[in-house]
Amino acid sequence: MLPDQKLLRIPGPTPIPPSVKQAMSRPMIGHRSQEASELIQSIRPGLGPLFGTKEEVMIVTGSGTSGLETAVVNAAAPDDEVLVIVTGAFGDRFAKICEAYDLKTHRMDVEWGKAARPEQVEQYLKSHPDIRVVFATFCETSTGVLNPIGEIGKVVQHSSDALFVVDGVSAIGGVEANMDDWGVDIFVTGSQKALMLPAGLALIAVSERAWKKIESNPQHRFYLDLKKYKEKIEGNSTPFTPALSLLFGLRQVLELFEEEGLKQVFNRHKLMMNMTREAFRALQLPLFTSDQDASPTVTAVQPDRFSAEEFRQVIRKEFGLSVAGGQQDLKGQIFRVGHMGYSSPADVLQTISLVEIGLKTIGARFDFGQGVAAAQQVYTNWREQ
Amino acid sequence: MLPDQKLLRIPGPTPIPPSVKQAMSRPMIGHRSQEASELIQSIRPGLGPLFGTKEEVMIVTGSGTSGLETAVVNAAAPDDEVLVIVTGAFGDRFAKICEAYDLKTHRMDVEWGKAARPEQVEQYLKSHPDIRVVFATFCETSTGVLNPIGEIGKVVQHSSDALFVVDGVSAIGGVEANMDDWGVDIFVTGSQKALMLPAGLALIAVSERAWKKIESNPQHRFYLDLKKYKEKIEGNSTPFTPALSLLFGLRQVLELFEEEGLKQVFNRHKLMMNMTREAFRALQLPLFTSDQDASPTVTAVQPDRFSAEEFRQVIRKEFGLSVAGGQQDLKGQIFRVGHMGYSSPADVLQTISLVEIGLKTIGARFDFGQGVAAAQQVYTNWREQ
Repeated sequence: MLPDQKLLRIPGPTPIPPSVKQAMSRPMIGHRSQEASELIQSIRPGLGPLFGTKEEVMIVTGSGTSGLETAVVNAAAPDDEVLVIVTGAFGDRFAKICEAYDLKTHRMDVEWGKAARPEQVEQYLKSHPDIRVVFATFCETSTGVLNPIGEIGKVVQHSSDALFVVDGVSAIGGVEANMDDWGVDIFVTGSQKALMLPAGLALIAVSERAWKKIESNPQHRFYLDLKKYKEKIEGNSTPFTPALSLLFGLRQVLELFEEEGLKQVFNRHKLMMNMTREAFRALQLPLFTSDQDASPTVTAVQPDRFSAEEFRQVIRKEFGLSVAGGQQDLKGQIFRVGHMGYSSPADVLQTISLVEIGLKTIGARFDFGQGVAAAQQVYTNWREQ
Repeated sequence: MLPDQKLLRIPGPTPIPPSVKQAMSRPMIGHRSQEASELIQSIRPGLGPLFGTKEEVMIVTGSGTSGLETAVVNAAAPDDEVLVIVTGAFGDRFAKICEAYDLKTHRMDVEWGKAARPEQVEQYLKSHPDIRVVFATFCETSTGVLNPIGEIGKVVQHSSDALFVVDGVSAIGGVEANMDDWGVDIFVTGSQKALMLPAGLALIAVSERAWKKIESNPQHRFYLDLKKYKEKIEGNSTPFTPALSLLFGLRQVLELFEEEGLKQVFNRHKLMMNMTREAFRALQLPLFTSDQDASPTVTAVQPDRFSAEEFRQVIRKEFGLSVAGGQQDLKGQIFRVGHMGYSSPADVLQTISLVEIGLKTIGARFDFGQGVAAAQQVYTNWREQ
């Protein structure tokens, strides 16, 4: 509608804050310069708290998937038996990577839209004592489910000697994580979600236990060999040329987190989730996940009386408002609203007000303002706490 | 609330579109270079349509007020008798500039919040036949009034030989203007309102009739001498070093206008005005101007049950939402919401949804979503037309 205005409300990539854009447009520097070294040094201490770990976090230049592959080739030795907990398209991706390396891959498929249950994982591990790595997804972006990684981690620790590897791509930076307490051995995220950056960086936190295996793991790997990254980052450097403009941006992102306070960042995401869910509920649109399984970063809706695709097309064309559709089997069945990263309660209100107009346009019946009012009430209650 | 997010809804300066920001950050060039000359050449044809004139538009580097002073020192000769139609703080400013030059200044004061009536101007001119220049304000930013410049122009033409000078600062680019038809001799605007740029450029359109007087006007002036600007712009240049980054931005603004279509730009502003007014009406907040006198670019509200200042403070502090307060005698009496330039119906909905929460916070009673629903209905009706 307004040229130059894009309302990007997909579950990543997400909008970039102005100060981060500005930071990223600093003049380029040499990646072996003193300035680059200082840049990396300034970033390092801010990364651990995002994962809830005291360990060092590795920075790989690549998409989120490069981070997942890094986890696989470092955590799993050739011919390892592994378990992948698949709750959606990104669990499926973990499994496909494992299969590409000819690992003995067990899939524990969970109905899409539901979270994995720790008991189920426990049972699986007990009946498959040779599993060496367990892979799980924190926020399953394709369904808006947040898996109970803390509880699953406990179960993995108690029922096996397996390493526990978690995809935190659409959660880290928006949802509290406690890697060390939860017993996560490798925790991966990408830059383009709650971290408010363009895609291009994979961040990988690694436990002491995982390092032991990685050191002696004979799996073929070169660019994605975590040993190289560890050796270099301890000297404030990288093994290969890093995406420096993204590192400039990441430093500013960490400053924004510090300014707001991480606790408040996580609370803001929960608030946006609650506002979004109550709004859709008030509009009588079926939510795809239960309150218990819902992620603070993305909400999936499964409309029963209209086409999700027609709706998405209307709001994109009429208001420049982008929400995501369904993936794989859910294509055409759901739409997904992102509320993570550089996103505020004010943005949620704007999204809902436009969603309402879009719904009316395709014939839904309700009173204007109903969804907005529900979200306003959630926001107000939260502020009064 | 969210660091780095500012919701600027004052009647100027207004938010800058991303593509304009990007254009403004081009590498600096010499102001006498071929590139600068091509830049000015590319801008010239797009300016006239904003004012509704076939005449050339002068570009002065300075604030809006420098544009107003330019109009005064070029249109009025020393000791001229002039009439200033004062409908608010910016009419008052025109009068103060005239007085600073010791012109024989008549003020026609109109009650703030109301538009000037052409009959009143006619009467004044008939009883003061020596008036040589009439000054008026198109959109009076301090009250949200749009004066009927077309009708006043006709009256000035029929009842006098005076030049007609108009301050178009918070209107041009957001409200249709027909300078040539309306008989406006000098029409001034600034870059920081509906033109979506930072402050720093004054644009001044001048009629043939005005040029005749300007050529022989003995008034002291140097930087603001329009003759110098005319001579230079005809050769795609400027008499003094121009704000080149703003010119880069202006070129992009004109491209955005072309992309959207000027007619649609003006309709969008009317739509945003109607959405805003109906929302406040639904919330039972008294509008400061009548529908007939209302400007498409800014809406003033005069709350009768709470403090405008307390309300402004709450929404600024809690949501980063800035609206303007009252000026001069209206200080503390009104608040003013800007909806011009890089502003969409989606932004109006966001503003209203936050305004509602702010109102509840200071104790107003109404149902959440009421104002939003009214604005959504206006938008829907407009889209169905």
